[in-house]
Amino acid sequence: MMRIDFKTAMHRLLDAGDVLILTHANPDGDTLGGAFALQLGLQQKGKRARVLCADGVPERYRFLSVEPQEFEERYIVSVDVADSSLLGKTVEESYGTRVDLAIDHHGTNRLFAKESYVESDAASACEIIYLLLLSMNVQISKEIADRLYTGVSTDTGCFCYSNVTPRTFRIAADLMERGADTAGINVKMFETKKPGFLQLEQMVLQSMELYENGRISVLTVSREMLEKTGCKDEEIDPIVALSRQIEGVCIGITCKEKTDGSWKVSVRTHEGVDASRLCALFGGGGHKRAAGCSFDGSRDETVHALLDVAPSFLP
Amino acid sequence: MMRIDFKTAMHRLLDAGDVLILTHANPDGDTLGGAFALQLGLQQKGKRARVLCADGVPERYRFLSVEPQEFEERYIVSVDVADSSLLGKTVEESYGTRVDLAIDHHGTNRLFAKESYVESDAASACEIIYLLLLSMNVQISKEIADRLYTGVSTDTGCFCYSNVTPRTFRIAADLMERGADTAGINVKMFETKKPGFLQLEQMVLQSMELYENGRISVLTVSREMLEKTGCKDEEIDPIVALSRQIEGVCIGITCKEKTDGSWKVSVRTHEGVDASRLCALFGGGGHKRAAGCSFDGSRDETVHALLDVAPSFLP
Repeated sequence: MMRIDFKTAMHRLLDAGDVLILTHANPDGDTLGGAFALQLGLQQKGKRARVLCADGVPERYRFLSVEPQEFEERYIVSVDVADSSLLGKTVEESYGTRVDLAIDHHGTNRLFAKESYVESDAASACEIIYLLLLSMNVQISKEIADRLYTGVSTDTGCFCYSNVTPRTFRIAADLMERGADTAGINVKMFETKKPGFLQLEQMVLQSMELYENGRISVLTVSREMLEKTGCKDEEIDPIVALSRQIEGVCIGITCKEKTDGSWKVSVRTHEGVDASRLCALFGGGGHKRAAGCSFDGSRDETVHALLDVAPSFLP
Repeated sequence: MMRIDFKTAMHRLLDAGDVLILTHANPDGDTLGGAFALQLGLQQKGKRARVLCADGVPERYRFLSVEPQEFEERYIVSVDVADSSLLGKTVEESYGTRVDLAIDHHGTNRLFAKESYVESDAASACEIIYLLLLSMNVQISKEIADRLYTGVSTDTGCFCYSNVTPRTFRIAADLMERGADTAGINVKMFETKKPGFLQLEQMVLQSMELYENGRISVLTVSREMLEKTGCKDEEIDPIVALSRQIEGVCIGITCKEKTDGSWKVSVRTHEGVDASRLCALFGGGGHKRAAGCSFDGSRDETVHALLDVAPSFLP
């Protein structure tokens, strides 16, 4: 339950063997890209490694997968996981209290691992993995570069969000020179919309409610919408960005209905509103401009609970 | 009507005085950002300079404007202009045959100026202006950095398109360090949609036609749609990107009705299809993945003419 510095984290990885790498549930490009890049890096160092994700690897991210190696894990690392509860039920039960090293960029990391290296200024976990691999003298191959670039680009909305720093751009430049198929990955991640997704986008936009003179937006993604359009949960992510894109909106709230009827809420904010502080009030967390939390009640109860406090966050 | 190299272009700018800088008509972030950055750079070198755009500066780009200086022009530079006809009627009449130096990144540049520096590998004209200003020992102030970043980011779809190179990322990193308000500019350029624009987006998507087993898409933006949603011509640009984003589409065609009833066509392609070669068949031009041309006939004639040849471009 201790924070460690960059150099210590690097030595832990160099000293480790038979490494199990955990991602968060509902995996995105950053947790998967970082985990598989780390697997490849550790393997290059002669270690055995494999990645475990409670939800498997969604089709959209299948190109990131690396063949798992079989062994009994002796060291457990999590990538991009802010709390053991985010590992997903099955993984949390088996490994929640056994994580040796958490590598993360969430300021809200709960320090659930034995040791944690958290750099909240990093735009993505992949930025940190990149720096760790370099410092470990891993050669950033095309395969590693593809995976890291996927995390770097997806967690920044393709370099659009305010978490981007000059370092982010320079890492992207380097990954490109090391062979990352940036154009191909961008097409996959940002420029390929299924017809069903376009329909979903339209339905969700029609569901939009505006509050506080248009400064708070609420979008709803119901199971019914997903069923009608044939979209999967893992495909909803790009919708969430829409909530913040309406002119005048400072706080964009997206309510996504889960299969058990509970609601996962994503909050996106513009400068001046700390999304992670807002979500922390409901047991969630994340980043300043992008955070999330969960609710067990109905959609209306969820929205009421959020609108009770959200206006006080407006600048 | 001569191509010159980078160093000569730099010396021409250093030797010039009382410089009139021309942008293309229907101006975008790159032509305006590059032109105003060049004005500021030349002024820093003790020269007088002003920018002229046939269509003025649209509201969306008003933040790029720099107070014009009054003088009788002795040297005329165009930025991001591939042909004199693209200057717009009024500007072409006055200056079309008098441009001393064209600075451009369109491979299809017609070499209409007395001297042309064309770098078709540059993702944006602003990339070239950045390198020229640096080589002229202009100090890249925050004001210049903001303008250059606007061009660099808008002409790459925020670093998403295949024209991005490692140099593009490194320039972005440098501009950020020189004070460019990258997050604020991104919000303005990519993350602020008016309610009317959302409506327009939906209408245009509903107009979508698919041909050749879904490999060619045609979107239509009619005057009626613009009137109904209150959107201006200058706001259509982001719509064009949609045409290429449908899964399976290789050639995305957007037909935009102009006020005189003629049609401006934008073509966006994925790898393997050269949009500028397709548009060149109709007297247009541009880049490999993004090009345009114009038609005087009806929408249906326009679409038929395009569909007569477009399938032969499919990979």
